[in-house]
Amino acid sequence: MTDQLIAKLRDALGDHCVLFGSQIEQRYKTDWSRTVVAEPLAVVRPTDTAGVARVLEICCAYGQSVTVQGGMTGLVGGSQAADGDVVVSLERLTGIEDVDVAASTMTVWAGTPLQMAQQAAADHNLYLAIDLGARGSCQIGGNIATNAGGNRVIRYGMMREQVLGLEVVLADGTVLSHLNKMLKNNAGYDLKQLFIGTEGTLGIVTKAVLRLHPIPSASTSVLCALNNESAVIAFLARVRQRVGSSLLAFELMWPEFYQFMTQRVQGNPKPLESSGSLVLLMECATGNDGISSESLEELLALGLQEGELTDAVVAQSGAQAEAFWRIRDSVSEFPTLFAPYCSFDVSIPITQMQSFVTDLRQILLKEVSNSKTMFFGHIGDSNLHIVVHVPTARETFPKHQIDELVYTHVRQHSGSISAEHGIGTRKKQWLNFSRSEAEIALMRTLKNAFDPKHILNPGKVV
Amino acid sequence: MTDQLIAKLRDALGDHCVLFGSQIEQRYKTDWSRTVVAEPLAVVRPTDTAGVARVLEICCAYGQSVTVQGGMTGLVGGSQAADGDVVVSLERLTGIEDVDVAASTMTVWAGTPLQMAQQAAADHNLYLAIDLGARGSCQIGGNIATNAGGNRVIRYGMMREQVLGLEVVLADGTVLSHLNKMLKNNAGYDLKQLFIGTEGTLGIVTKAVLRLHPIPSASTSVLCALNNESAVIAFLARVRQRVGSSLLAFELMWPEFYQFMTQRVQGNPKPLESSGSLVLLMECATGNDGISSESLEELLALGLQEGELTDAVVAQSGAQAEAFWRIRDSVSEFPTLFAPYCSFDVSIPITQMQSFVTDLRQILLKEVSNSKTMFFGHIGDSNLHIVVHVPTARETFPKHQIDELVYTHVRQHSGSISAEHGIGTRKKQWLNFSRSEAEIALMRTLKNAFDPKHILNPGKVV
Repeated sequence: MTDQLIAKLRDALGDHCVLFGSQIEQRYKTDWSRTVVAEPLAVVRPTDTAGVARVLEICCAYGQSVTVQGGMTGLVGGSQAADGDVVVSLERLTGIEDVDVAASTMTVWAGTPLQMAQQAAADHNLYLAIDLGARGSCQIGGNIATNAGGNRVIRYGMMREQVLGLEVVLADGTVLSHLNKMLKNNAGYDLKQLFIGTEGTLGIVTKAVLRLHPIPSASTSVLCALNNESAVIAFLARVRQRVGSSLLAFELMWPEFYQFMTQRVQGNPKPLESSGSLVLLMECATGNDGISSESLEELLALGLQEGELTDAVVAQSGAQAEAFWRIRDSVSEFPTLFAPYCSFDVSIPITQMQSFVTDLRQILLKEVSNSKTMFFGHIGDSNLHIVVHVPTARETFPKHQIDELVYTHVRQHSGSISAEHGIGTRKKQWLNFSRSEAEIALMRTLKNAFDPKHILNPGKVV
Repeated sequence: MTDQLIAKLRDALGDHCVLFGSQIEQRYKTDWSRTVVAEPLAVVRPTDTAGVARVLEICCAYGQSVTVQGGMTGLVGGSQAADGDVVVSLERLTGIEDVDVAASTMTVWAGTPLQMAQQAAADHNLYLAIDLGARGSCQIGGNIATNAGGNRVIRYGMMREQVLGLEVVLADGTVLSHLNKMLKNNAGYDLKQLFIGTEGTLGIVTKAVLRLHPIPSASTSVLCALNNESAVIAFLARVRQRVGSSLLAFELMWPEFYQFMTQRVQGNPKPLESSGSLVLLMECATGNDGISSESLEELLALGLQEGELTDAVVAQSGAQAEAFWRIRDSVSEFPTLFAPYCSFDVSIPITQMQSFVTDLRQILLKEVSNSKTMFFGHIGDSNLHIVVHVPTARETFPKHQIDELVYTHVRQHSGSISAEHGIGTRKKQWLNFSRSEAEIALMRTLKNAFDPKHILNPGKVV
């Protein structure tokens, strides 16, 4: 039956689009989450939507499980194949079909790397308002399937808010095309919402219409020191009120994180002497379309005067702003300087943030010998990242124990076990910490209705 | 069986919450679309979520059809009961449960009138960024069920973008509660999307967490004259680039509409002499958090210099701005001054707008004797409103002929038959003009999965 299936796939797509056995390179066998290394049955690389449709039609007929792969940059095992899967790689569905300047939209293939799409928008003096560290490798289809977040959410929303239209292939090979470019469209159910953030379990996105924004004409970055989370909340309210939608980023670093990044990472500056303080990195639009420099200075002066801030440094040049951002973005140094570690992406209601961090820090210190924990996050979006290091051999790293401590604490604070990374396979067992039985049952109802044979990314999410 | 059902409902909710026979007032029998006047079997008015759940549990057991009613301000028959329905009115599920200033959210019951929710946000110096003419009567639950639009969409998005969390009762009485306050939450499928814009056909929203924004500190309204739609598109691109997210409204009036509103409607000013021109009403944030007056003046000067604008008047006071807006908002005069008429709410890709309007004007002139047509809309969102008057007796008004001409023309321009009003019953027969067979089939799949007995708003949307 397996031979028959492969023959059909080769027949449908052409030999060169179907890899199997020793032709399957390592990169299809594991994703950035490095959960496992699998042996897929075959890797198919369709070059158009009809090809994806034929593959699913065939796999559906055979009840063959399929894993969809994009840039493989996910951190929860969402694009990790299982042994014997047919991998559908979208790497050849690449390119920009259209940038519509009048409508302020772009139409792109799902396999297009994010950075390529960002550049195409910029070439037309427009802005694709989604950005994350993996921009060079991650693909638009994966950004949609995971409802990607990143640094610009506080201003522009998640990937969901950028999607105006989709072309999708359903589990049985049906092509669903709604490449809508209009901001308002209430003609029936908004089906595209079902394929955003569902991690490829309800259908495969092949093409998308994305909303574009004007490019912010200039921006200013500021580093501030604050005494505690209450001061952060008070200052955030003040910033929202004064700066409105000119607020582009509001990133908080807890003391351990800031110390690590400014002392352990070579080449990073230390613009604020702030032992024990929280450090805030804020960016505001300050061009024609933003607030004035005077207004920003006034805001900081008020923050200092009211005791919300204890110190503030405004970047005086693009180079200095970049240096501020390197402090926040040097998380790529963790594997070198902080291994072995495990990291978390959670959301916590902002009013709970202080007790969450304070208590979790204590719990981990007490329960996990010699552990070191760092906190940082997109605090304006309630999104907290946590990194826990334990000086031990990788094999004896107490991952499950730490998972359980952190997610239990998240549940107690009515938080979310996934802010922006999704569920995949790695967080699946904790899903009921954030969602009720009734909700999980309804997710299963959806999965059964859309993919009754469970061939699409089986075992992921629900 | 009917007696039994009513007895069970009275038993579950108490006699005072169940009306039947002559107790049922006129207002439950017809909505603002005045499609029909129906005789419901009963009207139930639950006072809490458990009450709604009990009603649906009972109706589901009896296979009894249910129509959900909010403020009854819909224009497509979406809340119109059919004879023999049990009407679930949410009018007693009213009130603000919580305004969370730190999180910038509010939690409200579905039956809360929009204006009451707007006011509660304003009382906390925050802004609920959805607004429409029916604000005094329409309810939050209806705004969610129809994914309401309005004048602020270009800046803040539709109702969908304001919803962070929902409590919903499913067709079988299951309560689904996810009153999330966090901006980022990718823990499993985002089920709330299924209840936004699906017009009560998949579940009944009982409570919602809404996102709030800072109140724009000041704004300026401008009326501009332009020669044609190409000039509008060019000027819109310029505005987006210069003004960014300080653009609050971008409303276009075609010549017939502007003439009507400034000549036929008493008390309206005529700030621009503009025979034959398109007239644009634009509003920009111009406070601390917006653009400067100089920047706005510069923008208008450039528009005039480049020939996009032929004239522009900036409102010099709040009173003058209100007068400008009365020109746009005097559509409530249509029933008095323009009857009988029929009106349309469609979306058209912005690059198609000119040919759409020009051709449709000709088609209606030619095909419908003595008809007069006016065009206006939220042009920055691709949303066009059309009003067609024919001087004839109401009984002989050629409504179906006009519907067919307009929607056929919409289909030819790849537009949407509903921008913000929804489908309900009145637009259902035209749904396949905007959506494919595959899409409509998938909507039915969803309906069958969520409401297998088809008791919720049966016959609406799909």
